[in-house]
Amino acid sequence: MTQALQVVLAKRPVGDVTDDCFRAETVTLPALTDGQILIRQRFLSLDPYMRPRMTELRSYTPPFELDKPLTGGSVGEVVESRNERFAKGDIVMGLLNWATHTVHDGKGLRKIDPSIAPLSAHLGILGMPSFTAWYGMKHICKPKAGETAFVSAATGAVGQVAGQLAKLAGARVVGCAGDEDKCVWAVREAGYDACFNHRTERDYGAVLDKLCPQGIDSDFENVGGRIFHAVFARLNNFGRVAFCGAISEYQDKEPMAGPPKMFTIVQRRLTIQGFIVSDHVALMGDFVNEVGGLLKAGKLKSRETVVDGLAKAPQAFMGLLKGQNFGKLVVKIDG
Amino acid sequence: MTQALQVVLAKRPVGDVTDDCFRAETVTLPALTDGQILIRQRFLSLDPYMRPRMTELRSYTPPFELDKPLTGGSVGEVVESRNERFAKGDIVMGLLNWATHTVHDGKGLRKIDPSIAPLSAHLGILGMPSFTAWYGMKHICKPKAGETAFVSAATGAVGQVAGQLAKLAGARVVGCAGDEDKCVWAVREAGYDACFNHRTERDYGAVLDKLCPQGIDSDFENVGGRIFHAVFARLNNFGRVAFCGAISEYQDKEPMAGPPKMFTIVQRRLTIQGFIVSDHVALMGDFVNEVGGLLKAGKLKSRETVVDGLAKAPQAFMGLLKGQNFGKLVVKIDG
Repeated sequence: MTQALQVVLAKRPVGDVTDDCFRAETVTLPALTDGQILIRQRFLSLDPYMRPRMTELRSYTPPFELDKPLTGGSVGEVVESRNERFAKGDIVMGLLNWATHTVHDGKGLRKIDPSIAPLSAHLGILGMPSFTAWYGMKHICKPKAGETAFVSAATGAVGQVAGQLAKLAGARVVGCAGDEDKCVWAVREAGYDACFNHRTERDYGAVLDKLCPQGIDSDFENVGGRIFHAVFARLNNFGRVAFCGAISEYQDKEPMAGPPKMFTIVQRRLTIQGFIVSDHVALMGDFVNEVGGLLKAGKLKSRETVVDGLAKAPQAFMGLLKGQNFGKLVVKIDG
Repeated sequence: MTQALQVVLAKRPVGDVTDDCFRAETVTLPALTDGQILIRQRFLSLDPYMRPRMTELRSYTPPFELDKPLTGGSVGEVVESRNERFAKGDIVMGLLNWATHTVHDGKGLRKIDPSIAPLSAHLGILGMPSFTAWYGMKHICKPKAGETAFVSAATGAVGQVAGQLAKLAGARVVGCAGDEDKCVWAVREAGYDACFNHRTERDYGAVLDKLCPQGIDSDFENVGGRIFHAVFARLNNFGRVAFCGAISEYQDKEPMAGPPKMFTIVQRRLTIQGFIVSDHVALMGDFVNEVGGLLKAGKLKSRETVVDGLAKAPQAFMGLLKGQNFGKLVVKIDG
């Protein structure tokens, strides 16, 4: 009989997520039935998209259920198997509970080779956030030499890859991030041409005018809100927006209005496209070839924040929504 | 020496266009120089996009110049030619002055065959508005059977064609228009499944919920503002918006905010694409084949309002911006 620690959704947040939205529980997992495996989890990914799942009724993923464990991308080890696809000792990745252990039917799980990279990388630079960045850049933003590409949340799990891919494509790349250290890293390590601190800059329009004197040709949008409004107003003719997230708006009690002058979309022939990477799993092979190749060649940097222990996941997640992490945020789980 | 009546931009409007934005002038045209032709105009097209040109500094077309004639799509007859491409008697179409006569270098003018259709049709169902509708439907909205397509300004020069093309593609087609007669025409003649009066309906959300019970898969947007906000909130997953115009916003002194909850774009994987048909002239041949074929087969209806005399153009244009025309608005010119 395995005892598991898990974190369940205790109540739906209104506005900011608070401690009492979560409850840690120790449960005794049932014995496996045919087809099931028991996974001892090693790393859990925390991602901004989880915030809408805590409340949204009509979203791309069904909302988390009250009094059930939250779920997230996770890497773990198979410690018991009654499923012929998986053997004890296999390392797997997939959507698992916020828990030390998950009993799973194996559907949607993928075996990974732990010799390729540290396990947590499969949740970041080799995983969903990186795939998201690649898809949005490759298929929507399509930056090229002579253009200016903007990336909000420039050093986040997705943004850090998006910015580097735009730079590799030859564009001038400008971003914003939530503190000075992140801005310094973006420029020195990730190769951004410029990165401004959206907490200390008051006039986003003025700073964008300065850093993007030729306007903005593509926007990889992770933040939404006032930053998006300022970028939108500076998009050039035939500008593209890969709309990936709007973290600045997730905790608003009242939905924020969109940017004024939607007619700009017509005047400048803009394309604004929302996307969710899980719609594009058929392209995973292309992503692995391309981004895997860049990684091997040492052409991509990555940065992560590792939080130790599942019990700290709620606090870390609340911090993520306020931008307190640096790079990809993962929780190390000692199950 | 030809005397021409012309209408010049006397001042840039702020908010509603007023009489004093225009000035009618009689001028003596200069003698032709080599390469020039003199066109006696027969019909002038009045279109909503002219309103932004009266003020906008950064628009897709340069703004009209103060104290110079406004311009617009026009059909006329060559009455004198010093250009070998054109002979006296040719009927031509292109961007000409709001005038009884224009002296032109011939660039961008197209000869038309007056036996195909009434001359005014080349400004409507056979011309730019229809090409606009075709491009937006064919290349952005892509309606199909089982889907719901929405068209704002359902009976306007563009909307009436857009709606019929969506219906021919098999979609349920819902529109809105500014009076009862237009709504009746939309349903009885143009084949809309439903059309509501946006002047008498107060709750656009409620009427859309009723008329589009399966949500909205594509939106051909001509109006913007509150109607667009209500449509946006009801777009289905993978919904498409062909953003063609925003007539409801053109006369706002303060720009209207965009729809709240831009994150909807991500959640539902929306694509919002602005377009201007003049970017796509390479597709004109496809348009003529397809829409010309439908017209010959009697599968497209059209409706126009003809205003008699250039002197009435300003008043007619102000009416257009308030939706007082029915279908394509043209001015008959007796030069």
